Amino acid sequence: MPSAPEIQDSGAPVDVTRQLARYIARLQYTDLPDDVVAAARRGVLDWLGCALAGSHHPTLDILLSVARELNPQPQATVLGRQCRIGVMEAALVNGQMGHVLDYDDTHMAGVVLHASSPTLAALFALSETSGASGTDFMLAYAVGFEAGVRVGQASPGHHKGGWHLTGTLGTLAASAATARLLGLNEQQTIYALGIGATQAAGMQQNRGTMSKSFHAGKAASNGILAAKLAQKNFNSADDIIEGKRGFCRTFSDIASPELALDGLGGRWEIVRNGHKPYACGVVLHPAIDALIGIRATANLEPGVISEVTLRVHPLVLSITGLADPQTGLKSKFSIYHSAAIALIDGAAGILQYSDARALDPAVIALRRRVKVIADETLRTDEAHAHLISNGQSYQKYVEHALGTAANPMPDAAIQAKFMMNAEPVIGRERAERVCEYTVSLEKQPDVRELLKLCV
Amino acid sequence: MPSAPEIQDSGAPVDVTRQLARYIARLQYTDLPDDVVAAARRGVLDWLGCALAGSHHPTLDILLSVARELNPQPQATVLGRQCRIGVMEAALVNGQMGHVLDYDDTHMAGVVLHASSPTLAALFALSETSGASGTDFMLAYAVGFEAGVRVGQASPGHHKGGWHLTGTLGTLAASAATARLLGLNEQQTIYALGIGATQAAGMQQNRGTMSKSFHAGKAASNGILAAKLAQKNFNSADDIIEGKRGFCRTFSDIASPELALDGLGGRWEIVRNGHKPYACGVVLHPAIDALIGIRATANLEPGVISEVTLRVHPLVLSITGLADPQTGLKSKFSIYHSAAIALIDGAAGILQYSDARALDPAVIALRRRVKVIADETLRTDEAHAHLISNGQSYQKYVEHALGTAANPMPDAAIQAKFMMNAEPVIGRERAERVCEYTVSLEKQPDVRELLKLCV
Repeated sequence: MPSAPEIQDSGAPVDVTRQLARYIARLQYTDLPDDVVAAARRGVLDWLGCALAGSHHPTLDILLSVARELNPQPQATVLGRQCRIGVMEAALVNGQMGHVLDYDDTHMAGVVLHASSPTLAALFALSETSGASGTDFMLAYAVGFEAGVRVGQASPGHHKGGWHLTGTLGTLAASAATARLLGLNEQQTIYALGIGATQAAGMQQNRGTMSKSFHAGKAASNGILAAKLAQKNFNSADDIIEGKRGFCRTFSDIASPELALDGLGGRWEIVRNGHKPYACGVVLHPAIDALIGIRATANLEPGVISEVTLRVHPLVLSITGLADPQTGLKSKFSIYHSAAIALIDGAAGILQYSDARALDPAVIALRRRVKVIADETLRTDEAHAHLISNGQSYQKYVEHALGTAANPMPDAAIQAKFMMNAEPVIGRERAERVCEYTVSLEKQPDVRELLKLCV
Repeated sequence: MPSAPEIQDSGAPVDVTRQLARYIARLQYTDLPDDVVAAARRGVLDWLGCALAGSHHPTLDILLSVARELNPQPQATVLGRQCRIGVMEAALVNGQMGHVLDYDDTHMAGVVLHASSPTLAALFALSETSGASGTDFMLAYAVGFEAGVRVGQASPGHHKGGWHLTGTLGTLAASAATARLLGLNEQQTIYALGIGATQAAGMQQNRGTMSKSFHAGKAASNGILAAKLAQKNFNSADDIIEGKRGFCRTFSDIASPELALDGLGGRWEIVRNGHKPYACGVVLHPAIDALIGIRATANLEPGVISEVTLRVHPLVLSITGLADPQTGLKSKFSIYHSAAIALIDGAAGILQYSDARALDPAVIALRRRVKVIADETLRTDEAHAHLISNGQSYQKYVEHALGTAANPMPDAAIQAKFMMNAEPVIGRERAERVCEYTVSLEKQPDVRELLKLCV
């Protein structure tokens, strides 16, 4: 049915898509402030570790077997495996492995987006055929991240509408990033955004299933397809972000498309990116911080801890209130389990959320002695902990959890997390070389060297 | 951020997804009524013709060049070309070529869906690696069509929200169809719908660009990916259609998920499928019918027609009111041009909407003598025509345009349309063999024989 006349009218007076595309197409590496470069380095290292940690997850076994069958061309690296597959398929697989453990970075300023899984999976896969220096790569990553988060800020509430932002905004981020890596001009970048947006998808109904982290991979491969088509002038609407039936208004009832341009080039969203120190939902993090903090200064014997009391935001109980989780996956939704392993292991990594730890008698005994008080006056990144051990009392208050914008993980902590994630998969020596490589990412002539270390 | 507890609550009391999946998984070819089999035959033939006619469109040149670069594995046929590419890529390319001319079939009962482009492109591509008899193929097509239209009926208004149904519902249709072709069980079919739905996309903002028909191809390839993953038990939510954050409620504010099951197995939507006799928007069809009808009985000389008056639904003018189109593409939005070529050529096919015809002096002269009166009392499939030629007066009233559910194109007309579309691409002899093949599609052991004729 032709109803072309309807689409002539763009909803917004500002040509948001064109201005954003122009910015993406023209920006140079030397325009990036130092803190953006630092955030990009940290983002690459942390994401690679998460992907390697997820690379042998059963979900990936299935995805990889289908991807190999569909396109066994050895074009691009599958992280953590001895295997090369097609570029689109590698982006799909690596994007899903980056997000499968829900351990990857999360933007913390109003848009709950795991931007790196779609963006970096797309960039790494594409760089294997297009080539990319460290500076090309970091520039593309930074603008992709920016495009994804900013269009999200312009489309408030679409998470509540049922969409999974890592799928929807992730597709835009991956499209923008790969457009920049291919050096597309302004008009082609408009097309890349237009073709990307029209593929954007991912439903929250699929949470808790393999299809959730699939969104990150699909966003990555959709982004590559968008940029490759745009490079050959496959066209789209010129106003996909602000148009009446474009991205912002389709996904949000209260869209403000021009917000995507607010402070562009001045304020950088990647510097507000959050990295997870613990392999569980962020609402648990302040309490874990507090208990690890007590453990570090006191000489505790877990067996003699008689009482643990946590005062936290009410969401902690409503989201992660499971008292007696029987599997590793379920233990991620238990504040009681998280408190116990923080005190016993002084850590809350992948190992602490295994089936074995969920069923460990010492962990079970301690988590039964944990009390949780919901306190509406606290923020979600805030917690009070109090415990009694051997008759002595210990207290700790955490104002901002580690890994939030107000209390970022130090570089050393991100490196330690990477080593913990990567070493079991690629060995200590290679993992250390990856750390060294990313510390000077901007000096590297070809990021394919980095990928060679990650198999 | 874990908020898993939120998704436990399915929005609808009925397990719509499971019931639909069970139906899809269990249905046998012998369960199909005769009129469904006939509709499937017609659908396949008409769609192949549209795809062949679109196979050399410039949009396809770009798409094919990128698809070949991404996956040159010779797994599946590109229609109308001497070329084989990967299964997913063939589905993408063939799906877009089926819809690129907007000449493909359109469902006519409340859901404006071009179901065949995504569904058949997916089935043909998949059948090259999985194999498929004519009956397997028709069964899969029928259930895919049904799933797409029915979920659309359960999600009213999502077209107005900015979504292009051929992308969104098309992905579900292709997922259901390929799930059936692969013989997935009930639970796997649930997953195929869940993985399919979570990829569903396509924005109306892209109308009038190459990205619009791209939605049909993307839906086809998304559907294959969904079914292939589901076959290996890659999981998804069990309630993707009816869930609180599932397909119907995400895409529609007034969803009634259980409508998808209404009369399932009794009422078949594929028998209400509409086939376009003319290569332009359906609102123009009743007027073209009327004028071709007058031309067939009168001995007209276009040069001496002094006046043509059409009385039509007001939408005809608002959508297709262009008085003096300068290109073939624009002439599709002109009731004046359409009237002139109907009278001069007695046809309104692809040739009639070429640049050459838009600029032809005889066409221009006649279209200036056409008057159009908007009449709110008429339906959109209704028209009155009156003309004066050589002093004589002629009239014709069309109650239901040809190709609508109330006045379907006869099989002979569909065959004639196919020949007109296919002959310039594959030659008369092969085109005739395709007609013969599809007339007895249910008796064919392997549909790959049909594809061999279409290159």
